[in-house]
Amino acid sequence: MNKNHEVFMRRAIELARKGVEANNGGPFGAVVVKDGEIIGEGWNKVTSTNDPTAHAEIIAIRDACTKLNSFQLDGCEIYSSCEPCPMCLGAIYWSRPKALYIAGNREDAADAGFDDRFIYDEIGLDHEDQKLKIQTILREEAQEVFAIWKEKEDKIEY
Amino acid sequence: MNKNHEVFMRRAIELARKGVEANNGGPFGAVVVKDGEIIGEGWNKVTSTNDPTAHAEIIAIRDACTKLNSFQLDGCEIYSSCEPCPMCLGAIYWSRPKALYIAGNREDAADAGFDDRFIYDEIGLDHEDQKLKIQTILREEAQEVFAIWKEKEDKIEY
Repeated sequence: MNKNHEVFMRRAIELARKGVEANNGGPFGAVVVKDGEIIGEGWNKVTSTNDPTAHAEIIAIRDACTKLNSFQLDGCEIYSSCEPCPMCLGAIYWSRPKALYIAGNREDAADAGFDDRFIYDEIGLDHEDQKLKIQTILREEAQEVFAIWKEKEDKIEY
Repeated sequence: MNKNHEVFMRRAIELARKGVEANNGGPFGAVVVKDGEIIGEGWNKVTSTNDPTAHAEIIAIRDACTKLNSFQLDGCEIYSSCEPCPMCLGAIYWSRPKALYIAGNREDAADAGFDDRFIYDEIGLDHEDQKLKIQTILREEAQEVFAIWKEKEDKIEY
């Protein structure tokens, strides 16, 4: 095991601990690394910023992308003190790093009172079976916008 | 069908269209409604802000939570011009609205070149089967922070 892996993960765990001590939010921290250097950091700030999306990984990804001036984390590695929830794992897939290292997992998070495992279970179900009421309307009108996108010549794909 | 549902969804679709016309990002819009009024709006700004998390729903949720001064969307409904990707559906579960209305779906998004369906498929797999390299290290050290959280008396749960 690369010794640096432990250094970076210990930084993510330290951010989680500091966030709890400061009462910023839940016990989660994350860092983004490129070429052996930390280029993005984040810790959970949901309750202190009234932002349910302010998870450690989301904040670290946004921080790193700002530094790189890019919407992609090419060649980067993400270290998270806990297995990302579906929101954060989705964000990680969209940002396309080369690897993800985790310490805790969704069972540890559930044991501490967080919904990660519940959300993983729900979003794998068909819409009609999910706890959240989900209903489709006006699909054809949305498809018109997709058609405009597909024909747009100067679009920037991601 | 409640007529207002169509009004709100048409606004979400209009935001998607305007975002494409302005070259802000992908063809996606969303609104958050409470007590019959729009309290949050968003459209995709991934490529124009170098933020892979700047999806319509994430922006609309953050906007609404700022207005409500809360990290929960109690009693709210979300209208999205397309089925949310896993990141956004995760954000919706964390924000706990009472319902989600969608127009397009993940197949429409895939047909337009977006990874929503791919990410849904990946995050349902075990870590070792996912395209993204995911590896666990230092789990015990992360668990120490969860233990601190569990014993913290003034924590704010979410």
